[in-house]
Amino acid sequence: MPKKTEWTPNTDNPAFTTKVNEGISHRHSAKKKNIKKSGLKKAEFYINGIKAGNRAVLAQAITILESNAEKHFQLGQEILSAIIQYSGNSIRIGITGAPGAGKSTLIDTLGTKLSRAGHKVAVLAVDPSSSVSGGSILGDKTRMENLSREENAFIRPAPSGDTLGGVARKTRESLIACEAAGYDIILIETIGVGQSEITVRSMVDFFLLMLLPSEGDELQGIKKGTVELADAILVNKADGDNIKNAELTKHQYEQAVHYIRQATKGWDTVVALASALNDTGIEQLWDIVKKFEQNTKTSNIFYNRRKEQQLSWFRSLIENNLLDAFYADKRIKKEWRNWEDKIKNNEIAVSNAANILLQKFLGK
Amino acid sequence: MPKKTEWTPNTDNPAFTTKVNEGISHRHSAKKKNIKKSGLKKAEFYINGIKAGNRAVLAQAITILESNAEKHFQLGQEILSAIIQYSGNSIRIGITGAPGAGKSTLIDTLGTKLSRAGHKVAVLAVDPSSSVSGGSILGDKTRMENLSREENAFIRPAPSGDTLGGVARKTRESLIACEAAGYDIILIETIGVGQSEITVRSMVDFFLLMLLPSEGDELQGIKKGTVELADAILVNKADGDNIKNAELTKHQYEQAVHYIRQATKGWDTVVALASALNDTGIEQLWDIVKKFEQNTKTSNIFYNRRKEQQLSWFRSLIENNLLDAFYADKRIKKEWRNWEDKIKNNEIAVSNAANILLQKFLGK
Repeated sequence: MPKKTEWTPNTDNPAFTTKVNEGISHRHSAKKKNIKKSGLKKAEFYINGIKAGNRAVLAQAITILESNAEKHFQLGQEILSAIIQYSGNSIRIGITGAPGAGKSTLIDTLGTKLSRAGHKVAVLAVDPSSSVSGGSILGDKTRMENLSREENAFIRPAPSGDTLGGVARKTRESLIACEAAGYDIILIETIGVGQSEITVRSMVDFFLLMLLPSEGDELQGIKKGTVELADAILVNKADGDNIKNAELTKHQYEQAVHYIRQATKGWDTVVALASALNDTGIEQLWDIVKKFEQNTKTSNIFYNRRKEQQLSWFRSLIENNLLDAFYADKRIKKEWRNWEDKIKNNEIAVSNAANILLQKFLGK
Repeated sequence: MPKKTEWTPNTDNPAFTTKVNEGISHRHSAKKKNIKKSGLKKAEFYINGIKAGNRAVLAQAITILESNAEKHFQLGQEILSAIIQYSGNSIRIGITGAPGAGKSTLIDTLGTKLSRAGHKVAVLAVDPSSSVSGGSILGDKTRMENLSREENAFIRPAPSGDTLGGVARKTRESLIACEAAGYDIILIETIGVGQSEITVRSMVDFFLLMLLPSEGDELQGIKKGTVELADAILVNKADGDNIKNAELTKHQYEQAVHYIRQATKGWDTVVALASALNDTGIEQLWDIVKKFEQNTKTSNIFYNRRKEQQLSWFRSLIENNLLDAFYADKRIKKEWRNWEDKIKNNEIAVSNAANILLQKFLGK
């Protein structure tokens, strides 16, 4: 039986609406030109390239998947359909933390270690407003200097110029392409704008929250609810003069997580210290991830969550696309303002107007 | 330009899904039989009855509007379309508070006063799980003994056996019918289950939160965010031995509202004391409502909010109905499980499956 996604009622109170930053960036315009210049290849080309683990082809395929152009959609679907069966064989890790918490440095240090140990590491980002964040403007490859030189690593900046929903779809599809290309560790970074942490949580197995050492007992401007998403909390920059504060912060969060429901059933959120810069605590962090993976695979929670995530994505994609189709419909667009005016002036009952518009849309 | 309702992404974390209690009650089965027994009249009958302020006809019309039966829908639409032009001339007041806070007693005392002063007072309730709450099982008329004897009062229990979305639609339409019947004060009560406070806030001009006197400085189990919705907070049962605690509670909330954004632009949330039982503080409460109405009408915020509420309701009704139509579609229902299995087993890309299903649905 179809189950409708939970519906949150509309409200006119701005405190209850989720604003998604729709900042538009043009970072990818160069890439888009590249597709054009070289011309689109047949799906076969990208499929074979991905299966062979060719990084350049993987990058081109992702650019096609990220494109909003109609002509790329069919090609993207062809590619996806052929590679989906090779996806799934990875651990997917989400990493969040305020700007300055050291996410890039951690990914650089951790990713480099894992690459050199024979893993294939892909780094993706979910960030609907990356054009605003300084870090991303500098370019992810600059931020991850060591990792970007590794043969086994693939770094991809956040898809830009889109709403969170659009970014989420693209990142999920990029993730599939990376897995099909043999990447067995997927790191997905977010700076936690708007709902992006929830979005990332909904596509990963393990979710890491990064914090800075702090004197106070405040929650460092972390959004309420973020701690509840985390399977581990890493207090970074636990080095030099910071060590005492880092331990204070660790202790404080260890207390806090007692009162919060587990992000993953059967797994108590771990709080750990690290210095990504000095490379301390990084291997211990990886041990936590491995232990988590083992536990949740034994209990089947790992696999069940993945299935649930897929189905949940399926429903939300259908629902989003259906609503988009409605609002993009030419006749609806043309008449919309007129109906709004009638409703504002109490000339027609809302349910009546809604009914007429839906009949129009569905009767075509 | 059509503006899509803010979309909250799906997540597999249960902490982030809004559960709406779908408890089914059968309190209205007797009423439904009444429609049948007496037979449906033509729309004209109900329209004229409502315009004449006939309480019995108003009640029958609301029963039709509340019905989920296909055959009542067209009749309901006819009635609504004819009376909508007479609606709007009222002040709509939402009242929330935990069970035991004294909502019924307040409504009884306040409503009786207002009725006797010549107002026509309608009491509605939004409560998706009213069959669970003791108060509602006893029947609203029993709970509001004085008011129920007033000629100028109309009391209607919460529509039952429905999700919050369904209840919200019905209550909005009942409200229109009450206004068209000349009721100039609409009181909408909720016990604050799930999202019901946000739902009520989205259909009223003024929102009142009722509290009990308390010794501690805890927030009385009030859901986070409820205080942000309130235009006034009433500490009830400020009588006898409770007075000291009532004043403490008042002080505490006066402090709290300083740090919270205004529920209504230009209006600072007022905290007041009352004893609904002893009839103290009730007239002062009404003075607050009158002052609020005057201020917000002068600033146009009153009228602008109403228009925004209508449009927001319009969008959410269209979106809900569109999704319902999708999931209720016979072909979609039949194939749904099959598609879910394919997705769980990585046999098809989610975006591909979503696309195929939407084409099927829209191509009909």
